[in-house]
Amino acid sequence: MSPRTPTTTTAAEKSTAAYLAERRAEIDSELDRLVAAESSWPETLHRAIRYSLFAGGKRLRPILCLAAAEALGAPPDDVLAPACGLELVHTYSLVHDDLPAMDDAPLRRGAPTSHVRFGEAVAILAGDALLTEGLAVLARHPGHVRYASAKLSVLDVVTRAIGSEGMIGGQVADLQASPGGGEEELLAIHEAKTGRLIRAALVAGGLYAFAPEEALARLDECGRALGLAFQIRDDLLDVESDAAILGKEPGGDSAAEKLTFPAVWGIERSREILAEKVDEAVSSALGLPGGGGRLPELARFVRDRQS
Amino acid sequence: MSPRTPTTTTAAEKSTAAYLAERRAEIDSELDRLVAAESSWPETLHRAIRYSLFAGGKRLRPILCLAAAEALGAPPDDVLAPACGLELVHTYSLVHDDLPAMDDAPLRRGAPTSHVRFGEAVAILAGDALLTEGLAVLARHPGHVRYASAKLSVLDVVTRAIGSEGMIGGQVADLQASPGGGEEELLAIHEAKTGRLIRAALVAGGLYAFAPEEALARLDECGRALGLAFQIRDDLLDVESDAAILGKEPGGDSAAEKLTFPAVWGIERSREILAEKVDEAVSSALGLPGGGGRLPELARFVRDRQS
Repeated sequence: MSPRTPTTTTAAEKSTAAYLAERRAEIDSELDRLVAAESSWPETLHRAIRYSLFAGGKRLRPILCLAAAEALGAPPDDVLAPACGLELVHTYSLVHDDLPAMDDAPLRRGAPTSHVRFGEAVAILAGDALLTEGLAVLARHPGHVRYASAKLSVLDVVTRAIGSEGMIGGQVADLQASPGGGEEELLAIHEAKTGRLIRAALVAGGLYAFAPEEALARLDECGRALGLAFQIRDDLLDVESDAAILGKEPGGDSAAEKLTFPAVWGIERSREILAEKVDEAVSSALGLPGGGGRLPELARFVRDRQS
Repeated sequence: MSPRTPTTTTAAEKSTAAYLAERRAEIDSELDRLVAAESSWPETLHRAIRYSLFAGGKRLRPILCLAAAEALGAPPDDVLAPACGLELVHTYSLVHDDLPAMDDAPLRRGAPTSHVRFGEAVAILAGDALLTEGLAVLARHPGHVRYASAKLSVLDVVTRAIGSEGMIGGQVADLQASPGGGEEELLAIHEAKTGRLIRAALVAGGLYAFAPEEALARLDECGRALGLAFQIRDDLLDVESDAAILGKEPGGDSAAEKLTFPAVWGIERSREILAEKVDEAVSSALGLPGGGGRLPELARFVRDRQS
């Protein structure tokens, strides 16, 4: 059983749910505007790109970027497009992680993965295109010339986060890891593989708001705690969840003999550390000018999410 | 036999050869500075990145970018790093094209391909990292703030050139093509797969020189002819060359039943069109302010190259 069940939904949770639903709808229509139509040449490629992009993702990274920008005073309309750039980059990482040479995953969010649906070559190239287009969107948006140096700073932060010593490095280390690995190895992998892009999403939001160094450092701190919390919750969901909610086979990680938080810490200790990390993230967010806007409640959402 | 043999080397060719050798040496040391050390975490990934990057490439794209920038008055020292960003992007495309799911190539420039040497997962991720780092270099360099909007323009041009309707689209179309395809299909594939990045390299050089629209259009025109010439020469080399010079099995394209220029036009007609395209590129370059600097002789090099 999970620490909180859907039957205990509070008013605050309802408000968060409404906020998330509204943001997701905005992000989905913006993504639709940003990405080439399915009928564009070559069609198979564009069908594959859109198949993975509109597969029911939570849109957590763009939502965190938007919430950070909003909390620090940036106009949300300016930040919507580049926030979607982060989702394109995240989607690329899922498509490539699922490939036969990597996790060899048949299902993602309850549907066949890209390589199962379109073949391996097209899945690799759709991932390449999602990465290229994600960084292109970060270079193009927001369009106003006053954002030129902010955009270059965001590209610097994001490419470091997802590069050979960030997300890609974490994926290599994850593939090489064994269930016998310890806490230090596990933390290093997930800090790189999941944590870095979540941190970069929050810092990017601050950069679009022209936030001072101190606020950027606090966003980074908040993102570090939140990224770890997100991964612990993911591992716990994998152990606890019902396949119908999760959209993939539960227990997939232990079946594949992956190094996970419940495997290293046990379930109870994993839950405790999850709660601690969310408290850290909330307290970093509350320390931002204006109390961090929606960020504290988004941190609590990461702890309580059921899928 | 090829239209010109190495024994007919002229003084002009010697001067071009010396220029190319000098630029290659500069590019190789800059790439070495830009890319993380082999000992960086995770080591396998960084070994794979450097293995493909330092495999004896011609460095044609960065050389074209540098030559265009120089011809239009940009300081070469400022352009060296971003020109290397284009080589990182080009190297990513080679690593992914060679994968088992794509061309399944065992050799590249006489050595085992990345996936043969490091396994498929690491090869895919090394390609991802080369793409990410290539675009990161374009966002970071040149470092001076006066280049901010030029860098964003270059990122726009390059990501369109290599995106889902450019290089990646061309690769998808190439994989789906059959030897029965016609001239129109072949031209569309290579315009996207090879031509676009060569065009973007020349235009990027012009952008770093703050060249006027008319000069950028002429660079694009020169790149369009040169990109096609480059691919025709590549196909001819595949038919004509000696394995020892080329570093891969000659005739590989026809063995794989690929759609090629000699297959569609025949060898003699391919040579004629190659010469025409090089003449077009030379004439576009000569029309640039200052006569295009080294660009006309680089166009002739594309026609005459033996590997």
